[in-house]
Amino acid sequence: MENTSQTFEQTERTTLTRSLKRGTYDKQTIYDILDESLVCHVSYVQNGQPFMIPISYGRMDDKLYIHGSVGSHFFRELAKGIDVCICITLLDGLILARSTFHHSVNYRSVVIFGKTELVTDEEERWKALECFTEHIIPGRWNDARQPNASEMKKTMVISIPLEEASAKVRTGGVNDDEEDMDLNVWAGVLPLKLVPQLPEPDAALDSSIVLPDYIKNYNNSVKIV
Amino acid sequence: MENTSQTFEQTERTTLTRSLKRGTYDKQTIYDILDESLVCHVSYVQNGQPFMIPISYGRMDDKLYIHGSVGSHFFRELAKGIDVCICITLLDGLILARSTFHHSVNYRSVVIFGKTELVTDEEERWKALECFTEHIIPGRWNDARQPNASEMKKTMVISIPLEEASAKVRTGGVNDDEEDMDLNVWAGVLPLKLVPQLPEPDAALDSSIVLPDYIKNYNNSVKIV
Repeated sequence: MENTSQTFEQTERTTLTRSLKRGTYDKQTIYDILDESLVCHVSYVQNGQPFMIPISYGRMDDKLYIHGSVGSHFFRELAKGIDVCICITLLDGLILARSTFHHSVNYRSVVIFGKTELVTDEEERWKALECFTEHIIPGRWNDARQPNASEMKKTMVISIPLEEASAKVRTGGVNDDEEDMDLNVWAGVLPLKLVPQLPEPDAALDSSIVLPDYIKNYNNSVKIV
Repeated sequence: MENTSQTFEQTERTTLTRSLKRGTYDKQTIYDILDESLVCHVSYVQNGQPFMIPISYGRMDDKLYIHGSVGSHFFRELAKGIDVCICITLLDGLILARSTFHHSVNYRSVVIFGKTELVTDEEERWKALECFTEHIIPGRWNDARQPNASEMKKTMVISIPLEEASAKVRTGGVNDDEEDMDLNVWAGVLPLKLVPQLPEPDAALDSSIVLPDYIKNYNNSVKIV
C-alpha cells in the first residue's frame, strides 16, 4: 500500500521516547537528510548478535539503495531479505553552553527500519547505479564511462523501502540554566561543515583535460540528487 | 586479561571478508579514528530486531564511553549489559574514477563489538564526563561550569571495552582499469573536510567575554583528546 501522505506513519519502532520536540516523520525533512549525506550505517542481526557496516547509498523516491559485490558475504546476507536498521547522521555544529551539562551538538539524523530486497529488474538496477553516481556528485553519470555488462553482473543492488522512518533534528543555540547565565564563560555555537578541498588530479591524467564545472562548483550542502 | 600488544586480537566477528588490504587491527590507527570523530552509531538487538542510535562519545585508554539521561529507555537497556556493535566513520574524499564502476570514497571507519557496562564508580564517571567535554572541544572542561551533584545524578555513564575492534581505511587515488586510462574524463580525488565555521555567540552573551583561543583555533582534524 503506497503512502501518499507528506509524513511517514509512526510505528512502535519509530516512536521517539526522548526529546520528542526534535523528532519528525515529515517526508521532505527525511529526504533532504538522505540526499545530503553520503554514508549510511546498516545494522542487522546474525545469530542474535548486532552487526554494522558503513556504506554509501542512493535514494530514488520511496526507496533507499545500496550496492556491493555479488561475492560479498554481507550482500549475500542482504539478498535473503533480512531486517535492517539504517541510520544516517549529519553533524552541523558544537553547542558550547556555559555548563558542561548542556553541551551538545547540532545534528540531523534519520533512522529507517525495513526489510532488504534484492533488485533483479535490469532497468531498476541501471537506474540505481546512476543514482549512486549522481548522489556522490551530480553530473558525473553522463561524464564518466558507464557500467558495462561484466560490471553489471558483478554488482548486487539491494533496496530498502522507505516506509518506517523518522528524523531527529537539533538546531539553534545553547540552552543554559537561568542561574548560569551570568557566568564568565563564552557560550554559543561552533558550526561545522563538510567542505570540499582542492581537487587532486590523477597523476596519469592528460593535462589537456580540464576540471569539469560540476566538480569545481561541488557543494555537498546544496546537492540535489 | 589486558591486551598490552599494539594490535587488537582478530576474532571471528572482526575478521574482514572483503577488501582485506584496507583492514587493520592496529590500536593507534583505531584510537586516532575514535579521537577524531565526534559521533558513533550504536546498534543493539531487541526482540530479534536491529536498532541503532547515533550518539557522541569519548575514549579513555581501552574503553569507549557514552552517556545519557537515567530516564532514557535506550540507556536503561544499555545498563543491563547488552551486546552492541559500534561504528565510527570519517569521510575523507570522493574518488572520481574514469569509470563509474570504480567510483568510491576515501574513508576511515572502526567497528567495535562488545558488551555494555554501567559505570558506577564516581571517579570514573567524573573522568568520563571530563572526557566527553574535552572530546567535543579540548580546553572546555576547565572553562565551563562543571557538573553539580544533581546533574551527576541525572546522568548515566556506560562503557564498552575496546577489546574486539577493527578499522578499515581507504586512502589514495583512483584505480581505473587499464583500458579506461585514455578516456577523456577528469579523474582524481575531491578531498572533503569537516571545517569549523565562524563561531556564533549566544544572543545573551556579555559582550565583554572574548572568544577563547581553544575555540578560535579549533581544528577537528588535529584534535588531541
